[in-house]
Amino acid sequence: MDVPPIDRPGQSPQFEGKMPSDPASTALSIASPVVSDVLELSSPLSLDGGQSLVAARIAYETYGTLDADRGNAILICHATTGDQYVASPHPITGKPGWWDRTVGPGKPIDTDRFYVICPNVLGSCLGSTGPASLAPDGQPWGMRFPVITIRDMVRAHVALLEALGVSRLYAVVGGSMGGMQALSLAVNWPDIPERVLVIAATAAMPALNIAFQEVGRQAVMADPNWQGGAYYGTGHAPDAGLSVARMAAHVTYLSEETLSEKFGRRLQDRAAKSFGFDADFQVESYLRYQGTAFTERFDANSYLYITRAMSYFDLAEDFPGSNHHSERLVHAFARSKARFCLVSFDTDWLYPTAESKKIVHALSAAGVPVSFVELSAPFGHDSFLLDVPEQDRVIAGFLAQ
Amino acid sequence: MDVPPIDRPGQSPQFEGKMPSDPASTALSIASPVVSDVLELSSPLSLDGGQSLVAARIAYETYGTLDADRGNAILICHATTGDQYVASPHPITGKPGWWDRTVGPGKPIDTDRFYVICPNVLGSCLGSTGPASLAPDGQPWGMRFPVITIRDMVRAHVALLEALGVSRLYAVVGGSMGGMQALSLAVNWPDIPERVLVIAATAAMPALNIAFQEVGRQAVMADPNWQGGAYYGTGHAPDAGLSVARMAAHVTYLSEETLSEKFGRRLQDRAAKSFGFDADFQVESYLRYQGTAFTERFDANSYLYITRAMSYFDLAEDFPGSNHHSERLVHAFARSKARFCLVSFDTDWLYPTAESKKIVHALSAAGVPVSFVELSAPFGHDSFLLDVPEQDRVIAGFLAQ
Repeated sequence: MDVPPIDRPGQSPQFEGKMPSDPASTALSIASPVVSDVLELSSPLSLDGGQSLVAARIAYETYGTLDADRGNAILICHATTGDQYVASPHPITGKPGWWDRTVGPGKPIDTDRFYVICPNVLGSCLGSTGPASLAPDGQPWGMRFPVITIRDMVRAHVALLEALGVSRLYAVVGGSMGGMQALSLAVNWPDIPERVLVIAATAAMPALNIAFQEVGRQAVMADPNWQGGAYYGTGHAPDAGLSVARMAAHVTYLSEETLSEKFGRRLQDRAAKSFGFDADFQVESYLRYQGTAFTERFDANSYLYITRAMSYFDLAEDFPGSNHHSERLVHAFARSKARFCLVSFDTDWLYPTAESKKIVHALSAAGVPVSFVELSAPFGHDSFLLDVPEQDRVIAGFLAQ
Repeated sequence: MDVPPIDRPGQSPQFEGKMPSDPASTALSIASPVVSDVLELSSPLSLDGGQSLVAARIAYETYGTLDADRGNAILICHATTGDQYVASPHPITGKPGWWDRTVGPGKPIDTDRFYVICPNVLGSCLGSTGPASLAPDGQPWGMRFPVITIRDMVRAHVALLEALGVSRLYAVVGGSMGGMQALSLAVNWPDIPERVLVIAATAAMPALNIAFQEVGRQAVMADPNWQGGAYYGTGHAPDAGLSVARMAAHVTYLSEETLSEKFGRRLQDRAAKSFGFDADFQVESYLRYQGTAFTERFDANSYLYITRAMSYFDLAEDFPGSNHHSERLVHAFARSKARFCLVSFDTDWLYPTAESKKIVHALSAAGVPVSFVELSAPFGHDSFLLDVPEQDRVIAGFLAQ
């Protein structure tokens, strides 16, 4: 990596500093008050699909201070609809950072000790270049934006690290799609991470998940307001379709245990069923809220591109081996120099423990040091974001080694 | 029950005989070539919601011959989007009956021995009165159709049985929503069934299923062509929304095992990923086909009403007991005179074995004879419709007793 001689991240000429808003945000149906640092890449970003992006922008947040020896950086990769606001309030919703309970001073990922970097993934809509951004012709990309992969997201992360002067990571950490990015970094840039913490993820998207992702995309595309993705500036975003997509996805993030305990068959603000189509049940009301709230902070086309990247994800596809995926996966990890920690949750049926075990087995076969734990938590796939003290201990323990 | 003196079902003056089409079908976006027998009820059908339906029509198919002592009748109740064509070709798709492998001469439900009755449920769209039917004002009901319950469906079945001169059933049989109807019949009309065979069902819709049903309804209602349900005769049905609803539901009927074995990450008619939004993966292509094909045979409003009835289903809600559902369920079965057989499938995550066990425990506590088996089959919830020889043996065995 070419490490530019910068002393304080965010103050290199390469950086545009705090941005009041992305240039494309005026064309966005959602007003996106991006307040992050933004890096504009000076070199074209080559993509797996064969295209390249000129002047791609990566929005990111940092927490803590980079040591003089630059040895204390941790890259946190966010999930599908996550963002760079891992430990600071979301600029649209005002809610605390999505991993505020895990990242901060004295917390399991201790920003008194570590320099934490969290980029918004390529293809997203919180400041990084995505389908809502302006293409070279000055119009929003829309569906002209190239289809990207998880590895393309990581390419952008690597360019950001380079610009920040970080050539080695103390650790890369991610849950769900963030875990896939962590795996991709470890396999494709084996010199960068010293530790790899992968939570509730997979090495290759299972068919069930591909199926749910396709349902979500079809829901968006079925909305006439989608208009082939060219809805920016029309005043009509495909909110209805995006809301349905979010509802369908949200159900898969939960467990029957959570749903039963949290809602069961309890009615919403009424004593009896309405014999109508209102949200009689609390779970119906909750889902509708989740769907609607999501449209206020997320761009529909970004949802299409990011879920597409996920369904394409197969960490081992480029590696030699028989038709057995497991054999290729062992080859994928052959160059790895990191130590790994894999975490799964017993109630996560979307990225079940079996998916983590496949990774653990391949790492072990490749002679790579790995620890693994299946945690018991009632919250399904969402467990990695929620109050699971045992996860805190695992994270802190792994980072202390 | 008032049993009319009819000799051959379908030839009473109460019956309209073979109908070329439902009066409402001209207003339906789907041309519904109903060829079933149709009973028009001479008395208003009282509904749980407090309304009543005048001149409700029940389309049904029968197979085999009713014995002179009228003791060999079996009522088969169909699932959410099923129909009366249990063992005869579907009039729209031309496909064999949905349980053709189970019902017929010499088959587990042997029509050489049994007189099989299969009605189209109230609220559906294959000849029975539903939202696509004409209201008394001569216009399609649309969303003016009253919200119905599983028990309302069964009320219509009971009226049909009465008209057919069947006061006792050798058995009532159903899978999924059909199983809920069988349970409702056994609890609310305990004098009718002698045997109750319930497959892959529940006594009260779990929150996860309510959630998925809500996603499906929201997908339909998000389609501008839905127009508040008043799309009949407009030439524009909410096919896009209904297709998304079907896709989301269809995923829940399958197992990860089925999806992995049937599709895995295999590409559809191409050697490499397209880096686009076509259906690259076989599972995507399959789902899109399932969604589209469904719109050709099913009415979107019927989908709303039937899933609403399912989400409302709680067999025990009217029975005394503490807040513990299990206690009320025991009371629900107190008057039962039937023998029960419960079947679940180990890969069914939508109506898992635990749901069947709750019913078995309540029946046992109520002193009702019950047998139970969890079958091993790879097909998820759909197993009850597919090639599971062990299920054939369980059905034949239970009906032989």
